[in-house]
Amino acid sequence: MSNKFKNITIIGDGAMGTVCGFLLFSNGLNVRVWGHDAEDIAEFNRARENTHYLPGYKLDPAIRFTADDDCMADADLIVSAVPCQFVTSVWERLRKYVPAKVPVVSITKGIENNTLRLPTQIIEAVLNDSRPYATLSGPNISDELIRKLPATACAASADIELAQKLQRTFTTSWFRVYSSDDIIGVQLAGALKNVIAIAAGIIDGIGAGDNAKAALLARGLAEISRLGEAMGANEHTFFGLTGLGDLVTTCISPTGRNRSFGEALGKGLDAQTALKQTKSVVEGVPTCRAVFELSARKGVDMPITKAIYNIIEGKIQVKEALHDLMTRDLKQEWHN
Amino acid sequence: MSNKFKNITIIGDGAMGTVCGFLLFSNGLNVRVWGHDAEDIAEFNRARENTHYLPGYKLDPAIRFTADDDCMADADLIVSAVPCQFVTSVWERLRKYVPAKVPVVSITKGIENNTLRLPTQIIEAVLNDSRPYATLSGPNISDELIRKLPATACAASADIELAQKLQRTFTTSWFRVYSSDDIIGVQLAGALKNVIAIAAGIIDGIGAGDNAKAALLARGLAEISRLGEAMGANEHTFFGLTGLGDLVTTCISPTGRNRSFGEALGKGLDAQTALKQTKSVVEGVPTCRAVFELSARKGVDMPITKAIYNIIEGKIQVKEALHDLMTRDLKQEWHN
Repeated sequence: MSNKFKNITIIGDGAMGTVCGFLLFSNGLNVRVWGHDAEDIAEFNRARENTHYLPGYKLDPAIRFTADDDCMADADLIVSAVPCQFVTSVWERLRKYVPAKVPVVSITKGIENNTLRLPTQIIEAVLNDSRPYATLSGPNISDELIRKLPATACAASADIELAQKLQRTFTTSWFRVYSSDDIIGVQLAGALKNVIAIAAGIIDGIGAGDNAKAALLARGLAEISRLGEAMGANEHTFFGLTGLGDLVTTCISPTGRNRSFGEALGKGLDAQTALKQTKSVVEGVPTCRAVFELSARKGVDMPITKAIYNIIEGKIQVKEALHDLMTRDLKQEWHN
Repeated sequence: MSNKFKNITIIGDGAMGTVCGFLLFSNGLNVRVWGHDAEDIAEFNRARENTHYLPGYKLDPAIRFTADDDCMADADLIVSAVPCQFVTSVWERLRKYVPAKVPVVSITKGIENNTLRLPTQIIEAVLNDSRPYATLSGPNISDELIRKLPATACAASADIELAQKLQRTFTTSWFRVYSSDDIIGVQLAGALKNVIAIAAGIIDGIGAGDNAKAALLARGLAEISRLGEAMGANEHTFFGLTGLGDLVTTCISPTGRNRSFGEALGKGLDAQTALKQTKSVVEGVPTCRAVFELSARKGVDMPITKAIYNIIEGKIQVKEALHDLMTRDLKQEWHN
């Protein structure tokens, strides 16, 4: 495969879509960022700044924003940077403009409500052709990336050569990309970690301490890796950049929405009130329902997810759930 | 094997030795805590408090402190809670009083300087008989344990039945113990994590951000698990309570000595000055030298450990080391 992609259209003008444009432009590539709102797009082009989602950072005029649905004609790579619950509607809208055979790399984190599909599975179902798919994910706070602070990510595809070409396309001197063939695991890890982030917030809210937080991260990763393996993922993925790594940023960042929501639960609020207080989408809530359902389908024991699910549903109090978790039958740490 | 141990002598009157006494006493077991300094011991018994190492917590008079070397005669379990660099001298001193066949469980974290031995390997060499050994380790800040905040740990022994008996002996309603057969991995994880903690401090010191911290934890665990596997450990151990879990507490706690030392390095101090400023033992420094040597012996690629080693030795500047790490050849995240 040739060295790098050259002409890239990014579908989605949020913070991460914009940062992708910035990274790819820094690598000397041609980039275009699509958004659905023509007024927003006009303003971003005029201001040379994504004034809504990444304010305060001037962008080179060569990073073009567009609201034209027919924006992929000359692209040799398409990046999907659409929030999870909008992936279906955006790709339905753009379907007829997508050139044949061009690879799609998704940077969306999450699982679709109700259908329980991962982002590349949604796009694949909409486009319904045989193009290659990939995902790019990692502990990537967009504000840090655009300030050129060091970061890493993982590019994954069933086609490892595509993953490696993405690795070369996205890597800069401050953004180091690893490759993987586990497209399912990388997407699952990025979604499932939000459930553990809610639990980490609960630990903060009840003041259970650092020993408890550490236990939660370790045992949380153990249970999401069990589900991942049952779904065909490589368990290592969950202990890498897109599992453990992303979980750490999500859990230590005081501003994270999932963690903040959990903290409100830990302080005694019910889920409805805590959601209102958080004032924005808490992806971990629908993800928790999805994971609870998946674990039942796959017959995987996930005691932490079950506890968070029951707390969100108002079926159990936080202290009771914690007591239940601490007094389960004694186990081996790992089953071989 | 019978349900629990009943008469336990703890060798070592530091914070963790004392907390072990507290946990075991809470389980209705007979405990005695040995320390080498008769004056300290007299004061602890008088004050009903470990006034040196765990001040502020009154202890039940049934937790007896003793400076009598002949303190293990009726013990059915011996806990070794001695700082790593004193394990040899303490056990040499006590050797003739150790009753035959009684199991020894070590809660010491670290690798012995120069010999590169793990704590149970040191004791085994000193006692030179065929008794069973085990280790108990985890993310266990002693102040939190004595306040009965929830925590977890892992009891490991090549004899899984011994590990399970320790699990039953130590588990309380707020301290949940898992079992494992990986006594090498659990001890290695507890020692090696201090090297990554220094690196995490460096990230804080140079203000590299949360993306970089997350990358460091993920890639640091990947490399210490590679060394562990080469030394006969189970790689899972490094992604569990005693690896990842303990690393998280070490890296997020602002007071951790290894992290603080690293932060001083990141702010531009040389290792000598940073060590003086930290004012206490920074286990990660000798451990880093040991790990660097072990990785060379075993032929394991450990780029982060090598960078920390070179920074400590004054052979490279922090910014140069970070640049080297970020611009290495591109890799797959996991090699199968």
